[in-house]
Amino acid sequence: MSAGFEAWRDRFERLRANKLFETAVIAIIILSALLIGAKTYEETSRFQQWLLVLDVAVTVFFLVEILIRMAAEKRLRDFFRRGWNIFDFLIVTASLIPLDDSEMVLLARLLRIFRVLRLVSMIPELRLLMAALVKSIPRMGYVALLMFIIFYIYAAIGSFLFADIDDFLWGNISIAMLTLFRVATFEDWTDVMYATQEVYAWSWIYYLTFIFLTAFIFLNMMIGIVLDVMQKESVQMEIETGEGEAAELHGLRDDVRELREQLSRMETLLERRS
Amino acid sequence: MSAGFEAWRDRFERLRANKLFETAVIAIIILSALLIGAKTYEETSRFQQWLLVLDVAVTVFFLVEILIRMAAEKRLRDFFRRGWNIFDFLIVTASLIPLDDSEMVLLARLLRIFRVLRLVSMIPELRLLMAALVKSIPRMGYVALLMFIIFYIYAAIGSFLFADIDDFLWGNISIAMLTLFRVATFEDWTDVMYATQEVYAWSWIYYLTFIFLTAFIFLNMMIGIVLDVMQKESVQMEIETGEGEAAELHGLRDDVRELREQLSRMETLLERRS
Amino acid sequence: MSAGFEAWRDRFERLRANKLFETAVIAIIILSALLIGAKTYEETSRFQQWLLVLDVAVTVFFLVEILIRMAAEKRLRDFFRRGWNIFDFLIVTASLIPLDDSEMVLLARLLRIFRVLRLVSMIPELRLLMAALVKSIPRMGYVALLMFIIFYIYAAIGSFLFADIDDFLWGNISIAMLTLFRVATFEDWTDVMYATQEVYAWSWIYYLTFIFLTAFIFLNMMIGIVLDVMQKESVQMEIETGEGEAAELHGLRDDVRELREQLSRMETLLERRS
Amino acid sequence: MSAGFEAWRDRFERLRANKLFETAVIAIIILSALLIGAKTYEETSRFQQWLLVLDVAVTVFFLVEILIRMAAEKRLRDFFRRGWNIFDFLIVTASLIPLDDSEMVLLARLLRIFRVLRLVSMIPELRLLMAALVKSIPRMGYVALLMFIIFYIYAAIGSFLFADIDDFLWGNISIAMLTLFRVATFEDWTDVMYATQEVYAWSWIYYLTFIFLTAFIFLNMMIGIVLDVMQKESVQMEIETGEGEAAELHGLRDDVRELREQLSRMETLLERRS
Repeated sequence: MSAGFEAWRDRFERLRANKLFETAVIAIIILSALLIGAKTYEETSRFQQWLLVLDVAVTVFFLVEILIRMAAEKRLRDFFRRGWNIFDFLIVTASLIPLDDSEMVLLARLLRIFRVLRLVSMIPELRLLMAALVKSIPRMGYVALLMFIIFYIYAAIGSFLFADIDDFLWGNISIAMLTLFRVATFEDWTDVMYATQEVYAWSWIYYLTFIFLTAFIFLNMMIGIVLDVMQKESVQMEIETGEGEAAELHGLRDDVRELREQLSRMETLLERRS
Repeated sequence: MSAGFEAWRDRFERLRANKLFETAVIAIIILSALLIGAKTYEETSRFQQWLLVLDVAVTVFFLVEILIRMAAEKRLRDFFRRGWNIFDFLIVTASLIPLDDSEMVLLARLLRIFRVLRLVSMIPELRLLMAALVKSIPRMGYVALLMFIIFYIYAAIGSFLFADIDDFLWGNISIAMLTLFRVATFEDWTDVMYATQEVYAWSWIYYLTFIFLTAFIFLNMMIGIVLDVMQKESVQMEIETGEGEAAELHGLRDDVRELREQLSRMETLLERRS
Repeated sequence: MSAGFEAWRDRFERLRANKLFETAVIAIIILSALLIGAKTYEETSRFQQWLLVLDVAVTVFFLVEILIRMAAEKRLRDFFRRGWNIFDFLIVTASLIPLDDSEMVLLARLLRIFRVLRLVSMIPELRLLMAALVKSIPRMGYVALLMFIIFYIYAAIGSFLFADIDDFLWGNISIAMLTLFRVATFEDWTDVMYATQEVYAWSWIYYLTFIFLTAFIFLNMMIGIVLDVMQKESVQMEIETGEGEAAELHGLRDDVRELREQLSRMETLLERRS
Repeated sequence: MSAGFEAWRDRFERLRANKLFETAVIAIIILSALLIGAKTYEETSRFQQWLLVLDVAVTVFFLVEILIRMAAEKRLRDFFRRGWNIFDFLIVTASLIPLDDSEMVLLARLLRIFRVLRLVSMIPELRLLMAALVKSIPRMGYVALLMFIIFYIYAAIGSFLFADIDDFLWGNISIAMLTLFRVATFEDWTDVMYATQEVYAWSWIYYLTFIFLTAFIFLNMMIGIVLDVMQKESVQMEIETGEGEAAELHGLRDDVRELREQLSRMETLLERRS
């Protein structure tokens, strides 16, 4: 790699890290994203034409930036080893596809919409946030499984008892699970209950136990996560401060042990002479 | 117990702990559970026939597994001492009952539905989660009692004042408690309020105080639980790290005390000679 | 006080602290409370007659218990100094008022309903819970004031802009505050918004800023309370464990200082002789 | 500044800090604020006339108080350097504008409404609360951006698929984002879903993934904030207690090192003599 190329790379990285430039790019991406949505209004102002030019400029900037990052790798294969690079590459490539609205209009429009994901490539804080989200998925897995079992059993009982009352809500287990999700979000759940109460007066027990059970498990999940976060926190605190103190204490004990050996030598000397 | 039996047991336990095998069994249980629900659609594909065979295989696996665990105990009575064993035994036995849809169709179908609970027997993490849930029940007991008192008093006042306005919602205390639960979930509560406000213009005070009171107690319960969890956490931290440090400090003090005794002996020697 | 009286008092206190007795009394109070509610059903079974007898027994027990507690005080005035004693006295007195349903039926019935508060006198955990609730009221005061300001300003703007659209929802500031509380609980808030959007297309800004503002302040309040609880917790931890360790460290330092003084004396002895 | 002026200032500050006076002023401000709202009722009682006099007294008090604070500064420019002073000045000035209801009635009425903000100038705890709220805004910024991306992409897909079904809900991306916000608040979301399910039976996947995604990110945001608060807390704890202990330990080690040096000197003395 020549020195000229490296100078260019440095200039680009400095530009990218610039807070003012970042804010401007974020504003352009959000505004042009909103304009695609508003385009169905069929209005074209001078402001929109300016924004279109700026949007093309941002697309070119992203293209040049990714090309520089690819050229910086020794082998192109290395570039595609990191997940974020693949993500960036796909987003930039998708934003380059020519968008003549004559044919495949809908696909083209959808492609344009995914351009808003360039915000994630752009802002390091968003990458961190998304990485944290991905990390917390398995933690939720077993709770989701437990929830599925409860929803399934209640849906089975529900479709078994209430299918004749309202086929639209309790027709089969899948439909009943959707209805139960509706009940869990408190969305017009009393309408569902009042309808079944006319036939089975005691059906309020079914709904109340279900609501308490799901709320109870959700609450416990929340507490579990807070506990989890706290444990990681305390482990980190130990490494940062606790270990330092423990090491200090250990060193002190070694010092005292050496003192005792020295004293023993002196005592032997004294006793030998007396 | 012969060595052959033990070898068999080991092989089974290894198979059960295998992550790939576990995932496959979970997938089979969930898919066949969903199929029972979809069976009301009256469609039978080749995929379903395959799944049926796999489901029978899983049932046989669970049967053999529980028989091995029973045979491993010295006396059969010991097997039934642990709660989880009884739970597994009931689930496996229930899944063995022949399911000819000709007679007792509904009961048979319900029995099949509870087979999804085999997931809990299968996955150790779900057992831990359920044990944690059971443990947190008493913690909620007294809050539930306090909530009951508030609901009861408000329901009494509500049924006393509003029974003539809407008998369906405020007919007696039990019905009024159900209506108040609806208000607490914010489910169309303004409809309930607007109806009573036509007669008693000041009835919004009744609803607002009730909503604030229940929300306030719920919030305090949440904080109480977080506090509880934190106390247990800090006690555990003490045992793990704190005690180690405290023991180290105690040892150090003993070392220093021994040093002083040694010095005193030396001082006596020195003084005797001077 | 005679020894006989004290023996009686002890027997009563032991009976009251008995867990089985407590559970039985709680069950009787809850069941008879529910029966008052169900009495509107006009059904009288043998079970109800038994429960009535048990309820009278519980009333007598509470009466005797409070009399013993009053007799135990040197002066009657001292008894009424503690808030809980006044609370108990009022509940017990109210439950003694003869309930002939002929006249003042409604007042009598309401009085009977407040008997459920005897649960609070009965269970020490509920007293603790209620004391904790009362303690956390001032903490909420300033947040409530801030919420009032936001509700008031939004209600003023709302009643100013939307009064002509829907007089029932936006007629004056008080009514508008109630409507905004409805919006804050997400109760059919889109119906309110869609109605005003027909006249003022941009009114969604009004609703969204209001929802974000209230949710944001509520979230911050939650975090503030957790922080508050944690600070108290850490102070307590310091007193329990930290101080012990700090004292140990301080003692160690004193020991080492004494060691040094002893050594200095020995050094002087040695030097004098050389 | 003369001594007379300072005496006046002190008297005013003492009056302002007086808890009873503060409570009275808060009550007057809230009551007169509520009266402006109720004035649409066209009723004027003697109580209202008294309150009007008190409200004028409070306005005069605030005016005198701000004039004293302005006079206390060496240069008037210094007064306007602190944000809270500007805030107070605007509120007091706005409350002085003469309110003859003949012309510009609506503007005058709105101005009166903002007088309730004098509560914030009055109560130091509310200022602290508002400062804390302002501080936590950037923390929410990136999460809001992530939420925007998710809302935008779902709104784009939604307006693309469902625009023909219900133009009022899915007409363009902006309208679809408002509809999705409605779904996120669980406000009649099943009505929205049932309408689209008639055409696209699988559209429940769209709604469920959206609800899970937004709820999941919101939950993670909550945990992130709790973590953030805890880290700040632990850093503070270190400064308060940890550092003291660490310093103590360090001092102890220095003491022991000095002991060793003293012993070495003594050993040399002893060895030289033997």
